Amino acid sequence: MELSKNKRKYIRSLQQKKYRQKYNKFVAEGDKIVSEILAAQHSVEFVVATPDWLDNYTGPVPNAEIFTLPIEAMRKASDLSTTQGVLAVVDLMPVPELPKPGWTIFLDDIQDPGNAGTILRIADWFGVSQVVFSNQSADLYNAKVIQASMGAFLRVPVWRSSLAAFRQKASDVPVYAAHMEGTSIFELSNPQPGILVVGNEGHGLTPDIKEQVDQFISIPRGPGGGAESLNAGVATGIIISQLIRYEV
Amino acid sequence: MELSKNKRKYIRSLQQKKYRQKYNKFVAEGDKIVSEILAAQHSVEFVVATPDWLDNYTGPVPNAEIFTLPIEAMRKASDLSTTQGVLAVVDLMPVPELPKPGWTIFLDDIQDPGNAGTILRIADWFGVSQVVFSNQSADLYNAKVIQASMGAFLRVPVWRSSLAAFRQKASDVPVYAAHMEGTSIFELSNPQPGILVVGNEGHGLTPDIKEQVDQFISIPRGPGGGAESLNAGVATGIIISQLIRYEV
Repeated sequence: MELSKNKRKYIRSLQQKKYRQKYNKFVAEGDKIVSEILAAQHSVEFVVATPDWLDNYTGPVPNAEIFTLPIEAMRKASDLSTTQGVLAVVDLMPVPELPKPGWTIFLDDIQDPGNAGTILRIADWFGVSQVVFSNQSADLYNAKVIQASMGAFLRVPVWRSSLAAFRQKASDVPVYAAHMEGTSIFELSNPQPGILVVGNEGHGLTPDIKEQVDQFISIPRGPGGGAESLNAGVATGIIISQLIRYEV
Repeated sequence: MELSKNKRKYIRSLQQKKYRQKYNKFVAEGDKIVSEILAAQHSVEFVVATPDWLDNYTGPVPNAEIFTLPIEAMRKASDLSTTQGVLAVVDLMPVPELPKPGWTIFLDDIQDPGNAGTILRIADWFGVSQVVFSNQSADLYNAKVIQASMGAFLRVPVWRSSLAAFRQKASDVPVYAAHMEGTSIFELSNPQPGILVVGNEGHGLTPDIKEQVDQFISIPRGPGGGAESLNAGVATGIIISQLIRYEV
């Protein structure tokens, strides 16, 4: 079926956060993500795909209208510079009401969408209970966050909240933060599940959040190591892998 | 001083690997990387900077010609879509002749330049002795590899070689590889420094490399974890952080 001018305009409008919020929808692109959304039976408004993609798709039949377009026309309708044959207009995830017990990762103004998505993927792998995006962090529905998350956004509850507001809802749990001068992650004594704060890529922890931290955690450099710091996603992965391990 | 048409053309030509190899030069962009290159006194052909960048720069005076350009003109001369006020045309790093003892990371067709750069940064942090890029991996001097490495390429020797050719030069060391069905990284018994192989983002380990592996290593999922895999950079960080730790 033809994709009307209005629908194209609608898809492009969803590149902007204000329209995502207005319509409660976002655009997911690429075979991997769209297939995961359809497999999870998450609510989909419509799918736009190339005939090729449809021919090769083997998942559950979408409960939504499907528009087929040649790949060049997809490119015009789409958010990303290279399309991968399929996109879907999808409901935003439900806003969680109550924190779940277990570990929480708090993103303190993480601005790089690749980092935010990678951290969601880490949270998904290690079974972290929720990820909280500070109000200044990247938007969950930014196409690059969704892509880097590899479908994690379907499984890990995501909050958008200040740390203080989240803590009012969570029971009294310890707050940990990655920090160069903290205790080595390999020398913590029996950490209890709580909130792990990950600071901004350039500026680190914001001052009001730093005040709320009970324990700073560092990743020791190796012998002869030279780098100034680790990437925010990598640091989060190393710390969470150890924290989860202490728990077992 | 004016930047001639020929110089602009030269800078743009260095976006292509064949010209980087022909001239033995690459383009480094952005304050962080260029400042590190100048601080390391690595050989620089010339620098192109905005008046603003020059006013704020406090490092050692470059031993090279400096061209000043307004920011809009920088954008035209440059590789990246957003420029950061400075670029430098720089010698490629010397090709290492002998492997250094200690840990080696081997990139088995890592294609995402962000991942390759992030892994270099990890190697730098943990004091890994060298990183070997397989012949099909991203090019070290791709602008995104250099940016993600955060200057690590200045400190970590980088090889471009097949695993077999590298092993002929290295003394007989064990080969480890990240693999879903390997031994848990938390349960290795006394690993000896060797080569850690990181597989391609989509396809994992190539078959001929898989045959050379002595020990497969996995990162256990957390309780309730759902993701299919971890990002290649994050997985490398988690494994290396543990391997280096066993050594201490």
